[in-house]
Amino acid sequence: MSSAEQVLALVEAGGSHVPEQMERLEARLAELATSHGELLAEHAGATISAGGKRLRPLLVFLAAGPEAAGLPGVLRAAVAVELIHSATLVHDDVLDSAELRRGRPTVVATAGRAIATATGDLLFSRAFAELARNGRPDEIRMLSAASSALAEGELLQREDAWVLDVPRERYLHRCDLKTARLFQAACGLGALEGGGDGAALGDFGRRIGLAFQLLDDVLDVSGPTERIGKHRGTDLLDGTVTLPLILARERDPGLAAIDLRAVRTPEQAAAVCDAIAATGVLELARADALERVAAAKAALPPLPEGQRAALELVADSVADRYA
Amino acid sequence: MSSAEQVLALVEAGGSHVPEQMERLEARLAELATSHGELLAEHAGATISAGGKRLRPLLVFLAAGPEAAGLPGVLRAAVAVELIHSATLVHDDVLDSAELRRGRPTVVATAGRAIATATGDLLFSRAFAELARNGRPDEIRMLSAASSALAEGELLQREDAWVLDVPRERYLHRCDLKTARLFQAACGLGALEGGGDGAALGDFGRRIGLAFQLLDDVLDVSGPTERIGKHRGTDLLDGTVTLPLILARERDPGLAAIDLRAVRTPEQAAAVCDAIAATGVLELARADALERVAAAKAALPPLPEGQRAALELVADSVADRYA
Repeated sequence: MSSAEQVLALVEAGGSHVPEQMERLEARLAELATSHGELLAEHAGATISAGGKRLRPLLVFLAAGPEAAGLPGVLRAAVAVELIHSATLVHDDVLDSAELRRGRPTVVATAGRAIATATGDLLFSRAFAELARNGRPDEIRMLSAASSALAEGELLQREDAWVLDVPRERYLHRCDLKTARLFQAACGLGALEGGGDGAALGDFGRRIGLAFQLLDDVLDVSGPTERIGKHRGTDLLDGTVTLPLILARERDPGLAAIDLRAVRTPEQAAAVCDAIAATGVLELARADALERVAAAKAALPPLPEGQRAALELVADSVADRYA
Repeated sequence: MSSAEQVLALVEAGGSHVPEQMERLEARLAELATSHGELLAEHAGATISAGGKRLRPLLVFLAAGPEAAGLPGVLRAAVAVELIHSATLVHDDVLDSAELRRGRPTVVATAGRAIATATGDLLFSRAFAELARNGRPDEIRMLSAASSALAEGELLQREDAWVLDVPRERYLHRCDLKTARLFQAACGLGALEGGGDGAALGDFGRRIGLAFQLLDDVLDVSGPTERIGKHRGTDLLDGTVTLPLILARERDPGLAAIDLRAVRTPEQAAAVCDAIAATGVLELARADALERVAAAKAALPPLPEGQRAALELVADSVADRYA
């Protein structure tokens, strides 16, 4: 689901303040990209302006609620969260030597590892600088907890690479660290600036963040390629063992004995994806994610009707990634 | 000058609170290294505990003054500054594929690029988390400005790599970004927590930080190897043009026409270093740095005598790097 589609759907759901906030977000991100010298403009600018779903800033605005969404502090929180996300993407691309991201050349492809690493560091720093302008140490703590979790999740993923028998609980913990905690921070920061219940909305964000990652991992196995914009089985090629394989290895002795390091080509990866899908576990993994989305919606605190509807719609859009 | 020597000298100069603070710093750094999971303990722990001069935390304690140096907020600032410095070192080692740092294997050598990059990101995040506990947004702004500057300096250095005719002003700007601004933050944060003049002490830190970098660049040319713990001319091998070469290229037509990319072995680098030294510019560059140290001392604001003496001693220890 594209950013434009999301926003359109949200307008229909009563979140009519959102398009304007998203425009202000883009303006501020563009401003940041050009206000720290030519180099940042050239490299980070490309990353920042390349767009993406802007799902995390969207959550900040919606968690703040329609009354507060126009406040400068909410915008700063939205910008900070997106900058942390962008920093992570830039560093991930360095580690994966990725050529393209969102259809554009990556910083590492354009400028090399050194400049890309520094660009990511700069985006991290700017995120904290932006949020510090809110004058709320509790918000800084929330963001730094999330960005620490992201890095810990990345560490865990690399440490677990090629480990076929990684336990399900450890996999879920990794998803929580590398994805859910920033969703949690997005909702928590929005709620804090909007005077809402940061803990409860943060919990909502964390649940749908985990579902988002689970479905992402299912999509990597299921494809189709046209939908996910990459070959199936890229996780396998990176040595990353995700829920579908964890479940499938218990059902298929062939998968339980697979040598992950021998999976080297997109064709081989696709064949393993087919074997995983044949065990029927994709439906199980999908159901797990959808249950989490439902639980997230059910646990939402009392909210104005329009705000609740908009947050539920985002939760549904996460679930619809698979549909 | 080792950490132990510094501390000893400072005790003699009246900074008798410092050894205790430095011990608390080490304890807190060790605690942080072990409190974020096994992976951080293993990788970041090695970096953090490997020591180094701890010059930046020392400046935090001294800028806070003897009355305040024992306050928890000062310790947190000292920890945060050292974590930012450590994060930068870990990322630098990734980019340089460095094997050793302070005589120990680097994170990248032990665990690979991916884990080292994530470890650096984690140290960055923990720095802000630690400082946020002080509850002062002005401090977060100060630290994020410094860490943004560090990343911008790194960007600039990589962008200027192999550019022989880089202007002196641009070189100085790069030194300011990549070194002086974190020294400035160290002094500024200490002063803020100690109720002192953050701007004036920050200015002191920035000046001696710039001198520190200038002298570091001179030492890279002058050696000797036993003193600097590495071959002479490592900057040349990285394509980094520093003040000695900038000054020397105006005096020696051979150096003005040198092909930096052809300098590939330690022996070739040493020969270029000899040519630079033969022009007599090392004394000029050193004098430039020493003037900055003197100006830093002269511009110190009114301070209790013991505190002033200790800060001047640190300034002198920076100058003595060359002696």
